[in-house]
Amino acid sequence: MPVNYRTPAPEQLFPVAGVRLGTAEAGIRKAKRRDLTLIELAPGSRVAGVFTKNRFCAAPVHVCRQHLKSGGIRALIINTGIANAGTGESGLEAARQSCAAVARLMDLAASQVLPFSTGVILEPLPVERLKAGLPAALAALKADGWHEAAHAIMTTDTVAKAASKRVDAGKTAASITGIAKGAGMIRPNMATMLGFMATDATISQPMLERLVKEAADESFNCITVDGDTSTNDSFVLIATGQGDAKFETIDAPGWAEFKQAVIEVARELAQAIVRDGEGATKYIEIAVEGGRTVAECKAAGYAIAHSPLVKTAMFASDPNLGRILAAIGYAWNIDPALADLDDTKVRVWLGETLVAEHGGRAASYREEDGAAAMKPAEIRIRVDLGRGSQQAKVWTCDFSYDYVKINADYRS
Amino acid sequence: MPVNYRTPAPEQLFPVAGVRLGTAEAGIRKAKRRDLTLIELAPGSRVAGVFTKNRFCAAPVHVCRQHLKSGGIRALIINTGIANAGTGESGLEAARQSCAAVARLMDLAASQVLPFSTGVILEPLPVERLKAGLPAALAALKADGWHEAAHAIMTTDTVAKAASKRVDAGKTAASITGIAKGAGMIRPNMATMLGFMATDATISQPMLERLVKEAADESFNCITVDGDTSTNDSFVLIATGQGDAKFETIDAPGWAEFKQAVIEVARELAQAIVRDGEGATKYIEIAVEGGRTVAECKAAGYAIAHSPLVKTAMFASDPNLGRILAAIGYAWNIDPALADLDDTKVRVWLGETLVAEHGGRAASYREEDGAAAMKPAEIRIRVDLGRGSQQAKVWTCDFSYDYVKINADYRS
Repeated sequence: MPVNYRTPAPEQLFPVAGVRLGTAEAGIRKAKRRDLTLIELAPGSRVAGVFTKNRFCAAPVHVCRQHLKSGGIRALIINTGIANAGTGESGLEAARQSCAAVARLMDLAASQVLPFSTGVILEPLPVERLKAGLPAALAALKADGWHEAAHAIMTTDTVAKAASKRVDAGKTAASITGIAKGAGMIRPNMATMLGFMATDATISQPMLERLVKEAADESFNCITVDGDTSTNDSFVLIATGQGDAKFETIDAPGWAEFKQAVIEVARELAQAIVRDGEGATKYIEIAVEGGRTVAECKAAGYAIAHSPLVKTAMFASDPNLGRILAAIGYAWNIDPALADLDDTKVRVWLGETLVAEHGGRAASYREEDGAAAMKPAEIRIRVDLGRGSQQAKVWTCDFSYDYVKINADYRS
Repeated sequence: MPVNYRTPAPEQLFPVAGVRLGTAEAGIRKAKRRDLTLIELAPGSRVAGVFTKNRFCAAPVHVCRQHLKSGGIRALIINTGIANAGTGESGLEAARQSCAAVARLMDLAASQVLPFSTGVILEPLPVERLKAGLPAALAALKADGWHEAAHAIMTTDTVAKAASKRVDAGKTAASITGIAKGAGMIRPNMATMLGFMATDATISQPMLERLVKEAADESFNCITVDGDTSTNDSFVLIATGQGDAKFETIDAPGWAEFKQAVIEVARELAQAIVRDGEGATKYIEIAVEGGRTVAECKAAGYAIAHSPLVKTAMFASDPNLGRILAAIGYAWNIDPALADLDDTKVRVWLGETLVAEHGGRAASYREEDGAAAMKPAEIRIRVDLGRGSQQAKVWTCDFSYDYVKINADYRS
């Protein structure tokens, strides 16, 4: 059960002119489930993406990077069930064949197709089944296919993730709609997560490239479920140029508002992933301020967010401050700049309650206030590092029996 | 239940001339348990220690560092129940008062006493109870008190950890005996773990300082249970000089053998901690070779050892190779030198079975061989990074329902 999250209704997801989506049951790994999604883009669409930094990156990630270089992307093909990662040369061949098959059906070059896979690692992708499913996906293409596609890209997700906004952009409006999947193996650099967002605005390629990175840094790169970075993470931003909004330069009217809306949709998707974190019973925001750099604020946030001791305490609604302080104290493992952190300057709040300062428990702290702050399904931890003016937020979830259960049973 | 570990019998722990140990029930946090340990050292003993690098380091760690500078250490006082960490200025005062109380009873200077605490963080140390327990601990001092002390320093440990060796050292013999505690919050840089080792050999202070670091690097700094570095880690090595073996220079006869024996005792204690890891059902050795540096081998080992996905797969006896490869692929997060790791050069074995090479599953690999390698309570993962000649080992345990249970319930 996700923490305070419900998939938006189909009618809450605005179609994006120039984008059609279709899904099919291809039986990639299991029968009778929609596991294949085809996304068609109008000619002239611009696409930019950011991908996992895992050295064992999946075959489709390699192929995506290559195809994005030549541009002119017109279709995305996404399968769940098999990640096509750790599959060597034959995995690359399978990813290329998938693109070629889509290209043949849609009268494109194979380099105009981007492939995405998610699921079990090291198993070969059954390309023939994928190919066999393509005609059905093609026949199902429709402009309001976002809701269905959000379901078809799920793996261990318990709920489909989608978000949508329509924003004023100068004299006209732009639609932004996105879907994402991911529930485990989530961490900075995007973890087993796929995200697809599209807008009907026209955006110059350099601005789109920067925007996808910025949006990822403010959303998917701020979440963690278990600290595992996946081999397949991909986040793609599409600008079809079929609407009236035009952003060819950064001083275009409405660009700031539009950019903010893109970040908000990305953040909504990212937070939905955490809310649906494997076994999650709590949604936790860790807001770190007073750092010398954003990086060190993120490092402190991640140290707390990754600590199994903190996460199990959250599961137990136990205001175990010591575990939080200990995590801050070894955050220099993540960012060595924190090696000279002065523990007597650090302050920590649970919700609105100041719990630690001067290197220890705050004099005003009463355990019942801490306990009260831990009770809700949404918990906020605020940390002041006391050495600068930078800040960052990290979102995570707790660590429950069900996390172990889900991950001990996943393949069986 | 620890994985294949049993506390040595009292008669298997050799007394160390110049060391006496006594324990008492001081009621530090709970009544009716031995929670106070006093260790008395003969005049002329030399002591060296390594301590946590957590920035929120505990008050006793600060005091230890200070007292070790002036030398002449004659007593160690160890309490469980309360960690005296995150306790600010009053925590330092409590640690100093503990030393002063021991000093008064034993006619020493306070600076000749080293304090150690382990247990709940952020709670104040009840110094008066500790003081009240001291006379009983003093009265209980005995040369064969190691076994009892190993029990008295436990917290969430399910089994007491001790190890002992007698080695030929040149023309004479030396005894080495040690005890340790720790079961969670274990990771490089020694985590909530206390280790005390003593020998009757004479060792020059500079050699003792180097030896304690080297022994820690080869033992306590190679283990991880949950990746949490504690505020209180301390490992102390004592050389009483009461025996016949003398190592004043590194070319002293028998030094190499003696050093090796010290490392072996430390490793036995470190491995016992992992075998007793919170909720552990499997003991896992990760041997990484073919790295350019020892540091990058350790980084790859730790990436695997810390991955909750790998650890839950081990719990399920599931040969989920993909999770292991994914962890190796993001090990550059720990050591950036691995950012240029060539995934096609990496080879992985489960037990004796080659499971991955050329960026994917080994052609010869059969799932039943992997499954067979995962069945025993002791699992060996071997990784060849394929880019150098260095190697390192990391020891860890799996991640079970009981880990969550233990850590969600610890304070209640």
